[in-house]
This record gives sequence, structure tokens and C-alpha cells, in this order.
Amino acid sequence: MSKEKEKKLVEAITPMDEDFAQWYTDVVKKAELVDYASVRGCMVIRPYGYAIWENIQKNLDAMFKETGHENVYMPMFIPESLLQKEADHVEGFAPEVAWVTHGGNQELTERLCVRPTSETLFCDHYSKIIQSYKDLPKLYNQWCSVVRWEKTTRPFLRTTEFLWQEGHTAHATAEEAQEETIKMLNVYARLCEEYLAIPVVKGRKTDKEKFAGAEATYTIESLMHDGKALQCGTSHNFGDGFAKAFNIQYADKNGKLQYVHQTSWGMTTRLIGALIMVHGDDSGLVLPPKIAPTQLMIIPIAQHKAGVLEKAAEIKDTLSKVARVKMDNSDKMPGWKFSEYEMKGIPLRLEIGPKDIENNQAVLVRRDNREKIVVSLEELESKVPEILEDIQRSLLEKARTAQITKTSIAANMEEFNKILDSKLGFVKAMWCGDRACEDSIKEAAGATSRCMPFEQESVADTCVCCGKPAKKLVYWGRAY
Amino acid sequence: MSKEKEKKLVEAITPMDEDFAQWYTDVVKKAELVDYASVRGCMVIRPYGYAIWENIQKNLDAMFKETGHENVYMPMFIPESLLQKEADHVEGFAPEVAWVTHGGNQELTERLCVRPTSETLFCDHYSKIIQSYKDLPKLYNQWCSVVRWEKTTRPFLRTTEFLWQEGHTAHATAEEAQEETIKMLNVYARLCEEYLAIPVVKGRKTDKEKFAGAEATYTIESLMHDGKALQCGTSHNFGDGFAKAFNIQYADKNGKLQYVHQTSWGMTTRLIGALIMVHGDDSGLVLPPKIAPTQLMIIPIAQHKAGVLEKAAEIKDTLSKVARVKMDNSDKMPGWKFSEYEMKGIPLRLEIGPKDIENNQAVLVRRDNREKIVVSLEELESKVPEILEDIQRSLLEKARTAQITKTSIAANMEEFNKILDSKLGFVKAMWCGDRACEDSIKEAAGATSRCMPFEQESVADTCVCCGKPAKKLVYWGRAY
Repeated sequence: MSKEKEKKLVEAITPMDEDFAQWYTDVVKKAELVDYASVRGCMVIRPYGYAIWENIQKNLDAMFKETGHENVYMPMFIPESLLQKEADHVEGFAPEVAWVTHGGNQELTERLCVRPTSETLFCDHYSKIIQSYKDLPKLYNQWCSVVRWEKTTRPFLRTTEFLWQEGHTAHATAEEAQEETIKMLNVYARLCEEYLAIPVVKGRKTDKEKFAGAEATYTIESLMHDGKALQCGTSHNFGDGFAKAFNIQYADKNGKLQYVHQTSWGMTTRLIGALIMVHGDDSGLVLPPKIAPTQLMIIPIAQHKAGVLEKAAEIKDTLSKVARVKMDNSDKMPGWKFSEYEMKGIPLRLEIGPKDIENNQAVLVRRDNREKIVVSLEELESKVPEILEDIQRSLLEKARTAQITKTSIAANMEEFNKILDSKLGFVKAMWCGDRACEDSIKEAAGATSRCMPFEQESVADTCVCCGKPAKKLVYWGRAY
Repeated sequence: MSKEKEKKLVEAITPMDEDFAQWYTDVVKKAELVDYASVRGCMVIRPYGYAIWENIQKNLDAMFKETGHENVYMPMFIPESLLQKEADHVEGFAPEVAWVTHGGNQELTERLCVRPTSETLFCDHYSKIIQSYKDLPKLYNQWCSVVRWEKTTRPFLRTTEFLWQEGHTAHATAEEAQEETIKMLNVYARLCEEYLAIPVVKGRKTDKEKFAGAEATYTIESLMHDGKALQCGTSHNFGDGFAKAFNIQYADKNGKLQYVHQTSWGMTTRLIGALIMVHGDDSGLVLPPKIAPTQLMIIPIAQHKAGVLEKAAEIKDTLSKVARVKMDNSDKMPGWKFSEYEMKGIPLRLEIGPKDIENNQAVLVRRDNREKIVVSLEELESKVPEILEDIQRSLLEKARTAQITKTSIAANMEEFNKILDSKLGFVKAMWCGDRACEDSIKEAAGATSRCMPFEQESVADTCVCCGKPAKKLVYWGRAY
């Protein structure tokens, strides 16, 4: 391939500052994460995108098991009558579900919806298997796909079908349910910060923004590079609302029947969208080492020269003990390979050519800050894990700094609008607790309440919107 | 719990010789593998059933990755027009699919079927991403659920929705596609024999029994305890039929356009049904150690006595290094625990009580043959893995013997019917190659051709049905 063609490949992404949405679409396609499918709003998750999901899944699933949860599988269909059992829930979901009306060549006597979420199925099952306090708690999780008939869709961020996990638990007491709700929110926060290097704000959703059927919804919110907010995961406390609708009762130690208290919590493939928009740059994806399918790519230089491929293979064997390593010895030009793996966000590149071999060294290039590090061959095995750890730490730090920079305080709507007009980001502002003010902020500034953070401060005495006495600090923002 | 009640629990399973179908249903329910769902023919896979599936998945997925396959995810919906692109395929599947006709509150302009299998989606994707010989082979796999609108259903064996994996590959040449087809059949056979301890017969399906759209279907067939056959996995060579229907072409080294050659292969949750029906007995499930979620269950005896629980916990810690171990120190009576874990098919039970501690020993009880083995505490760590390996080996051996015992040879239809009337099992008999004979054997004996085994022998000169010259040895049987 000619130098010019190679250059074109690199230039083919829209710069983020020019058109962030187009940049996102370009990265998603060029890094070969997804392809569009023949069904509106659905995506084909390609091997590289799916490998990222597998890593997210593996780490999250291990945390679920550590905290005593078990995986199960519920049917993908929900009979219409079952979906209707909890009033708020059906009101929230019925308008956006896909309906199966025919099976084989027969019209069904009752329509089935493709699960948009599975509370109703878990409740139906729990009502059959829970009899005594000895059966509690039930700590179940399910990995599956769900369908919500969205009007406008974007890969990973909002798709008609998406992959997720949904935890559903049943407890003897309200206290235990609340403890579980917060415990799983913390598991989510840990996944985001420790593995995805995405800092999050933890808090509670307002009643307007809570899950259909929940008593309280908790959320972790993050900021993307363009200053828009993204909800990364939610955890819901249902109280005994579903238990009453589905008659899930247990006999307590005195033989008295009690309703269970339930929770649910979910995280989705949208996290891959967050990874792209928090860490990516104009050369493409940037992946945190802990979640990268390949952590280090070896690129032999002048590989036709004697000894180069042998040495590269030797290095690959050595480094495979300490990292996820691949080598590209295809006949593409090194420059082309550099661009390709930068686009794919591989954290570290190792270059090894005849001169390096002569000098008993290799060149490492970090994806995050492009730093070149010359390392002697003996030191590679100890240096690579250190550098990977440093990349992981730096990415989180950089994202945390960006989040702080993009977080502002507003005392009134004038300040509020000024912030969102100039740079977007989180706006911290006081709220009186009235739905009317939330509606009016959405109307005026296009911003929604992201959460009432656990770490409450008083940044003003009065509601940013109506001027009445303030009750809560709220994070506001325009959101994906 | 009283002794009598405990006895009842054990007796509550129908003996297999009395009513095999009822025995199966009893095991599936009492071992807590599944629960019935509110949707006809669908199942709730409970934690214990799902943990078995996770073990199957983990081992099979590792073999896929070893052989160079990558996981992807395709949408669960197929537009009707896409399903119709390959004529044989649509004819085979259209009568048994579920149709989505409404999304949100709108009627769709084109019906979508819920995938019964995903050839059409993979082909659609391949037609977009394959351009050159450099893009080949594509070795993709997907873990998901599929839906087929079955009339009569049974947990694991035949359900409206089931979990599976489906591999879909594209190759430059017919030879490579054929090699892949057989390679993956061998992977399946290895999973069955090495992990599930289920011996299989490998062979090719007749044209009547092959997959809709395939040039050739290969299968692994096993025999259940009742003598009925079960297809455990299939691997299909599509030739270039789908490539022509979906226009999947690549430029070869000379720049000439060529059609790709494709394969697909699948294994499902039905394997759990096979595990039950090959190894189970009148006390319930019997699991091969390699696939058992828990390999050894520790049951403290007289656990209120000083030192018992401490010693049991100590043993648990030691054995956890060499096996998947759990301890049940609940307040149920030991006899009840014995029955429960026999029902769940846990390969080994360890009993430890005050007298054992005095004698510095523990009692191991094998699930497969009920052998009691007294082992000194020092030897436990080395003995347990040995015994687990022996159980794994014995189960395969026992199943192999059963299969040989239940395999007979028939030279004519009189012998054929006599065999199936007396004991069921595989009938080895010659076939002329005519569809008419297959149909007539099905009519007369209720048996289908299971496969033309790779290991061909000549057990007669003439077709078992029509008496014309024989072309192939076929395994016949009544099947699930």
C-alpha cells in the first residue's frame, strides 16, 4: 500500500471537535466494533467489539459471584397479562415493546412481548419458589439481550436490541433490600472506575427519572468527552410493590406470611459507548489495559531481514506470560499497522527491528500519550506490566480531571444556561424537590436531573429554578 | 424432619423402569434444574441447571478459541425478506418461527421473525465484510437463544426457546469448508466423551434428515438409558449455496471473483437432557465430575459436637485447592442432605463426624456406584482428585457398555422390528440409499435413520427394507 493511501486511512476519521457524533460513528465502524444490521436499530457486534464485552462480562460476573449471586435464564417472552400485573411497570414499558402475535402459522390467543426487562418473569418465578424465610434471600442474575422499540438509535448507546445483565433479588426485610441496592451500585462503580477507568458520580434518581415500578432508583453517571452525561448503570429498590402485585410471600420464623422486598439492577453494552467517548481521540479508540482484548501488539520492523521474526516471536512468548499479546507479521507496511492498532485502541505497541536487536532493545509506544519508551530486552517482562498499570491509572486520572473541569455550579437559571451554552458538562445546582422545576429546566436548558449525589453539599440556599428553599443538590446535564 | 418424611422425599421419584418419561420430569424438577414458565414450551433455567450450562459453555468456548474462532453477536430478529433468500432454508424454518408484527404501538411494514437459527444474518453480514481472499477464512461463533415454535415440548429436549451456540464460517475453498465441518464435529464429540462422559457415534445424515439448506449434515448420536437416540450436535457443510443466494464473493489472488464456501454447527441446552438420561438413576441425577458445578459436598455428622464444624471447614479449605467443594452445615438431618445431593448428582460426598475425627479419617461416598471409601485426613488432598477422575472414567465406560449392549444388527425388517419391540437401541442395518425405504422404515418401525457412520461395515449385502443391493450401513433408532 502506498504512503498516500496509508495517510488517507488515518485521515478518514472526522476530528472530534469538528463533529463529535460523526467521530463516534467513524470510530465504531473503523475500529470494527459493530456493523449495521438489516433490522432497524439493531447492531451486529463484531469480534473486536464482542471481545470487549466478554471482558466486561467476565469481570462483572466474577464480582456477582463473589457477592453470592447465581446466574439463571428466564424466557425471552412475556405474556401480555403478566406484563400488566404491576401498574407503573406496564405503563413505563408497554409503549416500547415488540409484540409477537404469531407462532408457526397460527395466531396466538395472547400476544407475547419480547422482554424489555424481566421483573415480571422473575416475580412470577419467585411467587412459586419462595415459601419460607429459609428460602431467602434469592440473589439471581441473568445475562441476555432485551428489546426496546426506540425511535432514534445509535450503536451501543441506544439500540433496539442490546446485551445486558439484570440482577433480581428478593429479601426478607426492607433493610436488606436497601443494602443490596446500594451494594450492587457500588459493584457497578467499582467496575467503571477500576476496570473501565471511567469516574462516576453515585446518587439517587428523582421520582421523575426513576425506573417504572421502583420505589427508588440509584445511578452512576459519567461525563463523555463532549460534556454530555451518560447513565452507566442503575440499581432499583422495589420495596414490596412487585411482591404485592405478584403475591410473593414467605412464612417468617413465627409462621406469619410476609411480603418479600425486591431489587433489580442492570448494566448494558452501552458501557462500550462510554469507553469510546471517555477515552477516545482523533486517532480512534483508547482502551484501558484491564479491559483491552489485546494489551500489547508486536510489530516487527523490516521483518524480511534475518532474525527479526524469530526475535519478535521469542518476545511474544515471553510477554504472553504477563500480558495479552499479539503479533502482526502480515505483509502490510508498519505505518499502516500503527494506524490500525491505534484505531483499535491497543494500549501498547512494541516495535522490534534489526537495529533494536543489535542494541538488545525494543521500542514501546503508549497509545494514551504516545510516549516512546526504549527498553532492554531483559527488562521487557518486568516493564510491560508496570507500563500497562500506569496507562490504566493515567486514563482514570485524566478522565477524572476532565470530569472536574467540566463540572460547574449554578445558583440561578442565568448561570445554568450560560454554562450549558458555553461548554456543557455537569451542572451542580440546588433543587426544591418539585417536579415542575425539573420539567421547566428540561424545557429551558434541555438538561435533565442526572442524580441527587450521595455526597450532598449546599451550593446555594434556594432552588436554581423557582427560588424556593432548596432541598437537594442535584447534578444536571444533557444526556445520551 | 422425621425419618419417614425423609424416606418419602427419596421415594418421590418415579422409578425409571416404571415410567421413564415421568422419571425424567421428576429429576428435572427435584434436582431444581428448571421450572416451567408462563409461556407455553419455555423454561426457567434455575441456578443449578444454569451452572451446568455455564460449565459446558466454558469448556466448549475454550475449544472454539483454541481452534481460532471468534465470538460475535447478531440481532435476534430476521426480516421476512432476508429469511426467504435461500429457498430450502426458508421452507425448513418458516413453519416454526415466531413472528413480531408490532413494535411499540405501530404495526411493522415488514414482519420480523425471532431467529430460529442465524445463517441468513451471518450471510448478510459476510456479504458486506468479505471482499478479498485476505479476509478469509471467517471463523465466527455466537452464544444466544433461539426460538422454534414446537408443538410438543419437554424441558431441555425440545423447548420453544433454547440456549445454544451457532458457529458460522466462510472459506475460500470447498476443501477447507469440508475440513472445518469435520473438525467441529470432532470438537463436539470430544466435549461429549471427555467432559460429559457420553459416548457418541459420528456420521453423516441422510438427505432426508439433513439441515434445511445444507449440502451435507454431520451428526453425533448418543443413546439414552431407555434406548432412544438423541442427536447431540450437528455440523453442516453448505457448499456455496448460501453464498450464491446472498452473493458472498471474494477476489482471489488473481483478482477473479469466487463464491465462498460455508459451514455452520450447533450444540444446545439439550445436552443437559442427555446428561440426565445417560447417567441418571432412581435416586436422581449423576453428574460427571468435569461438568459438575459442585464436585464434592461435605456433610458434617453430629455437627453440634465440639470440633466437628471446625474440622469440616478445615477440610473444605484444603480440598478447595483440588476440587469444586461445598459444605452443608444447615440444620437439616444428614439423611435428608444425602438424598438432596444424590438427587443433584454431586459426584462425591464427604462425611466427617466425631468418630472420624477420633480416627483421623473421613468417609467418601461415590454417587455413581455408592462405594464408601475411608480415607485418612492426610491423604484426602491426593485421593479426592484420583477418585473424581475414576468416576469420570467409569461413567464413560459404563455408558459405552450400555451403548454396545443396546446396539444390534438387523438383516431384514422382521429382525429390525423384533429388536425395537423388545428393547429399543441402535439398529445397524444396510440401506439402498432410497428415500422410499427410509419413509417406509419410519412408517413400519417408528425409527429414523440416525446417521451413516464414518466407520462403515458391511453387515449384509442387501437393503434391510427393499432387498436391493446395499449402499451404506446406517444407524437407525427411535429418537428424542
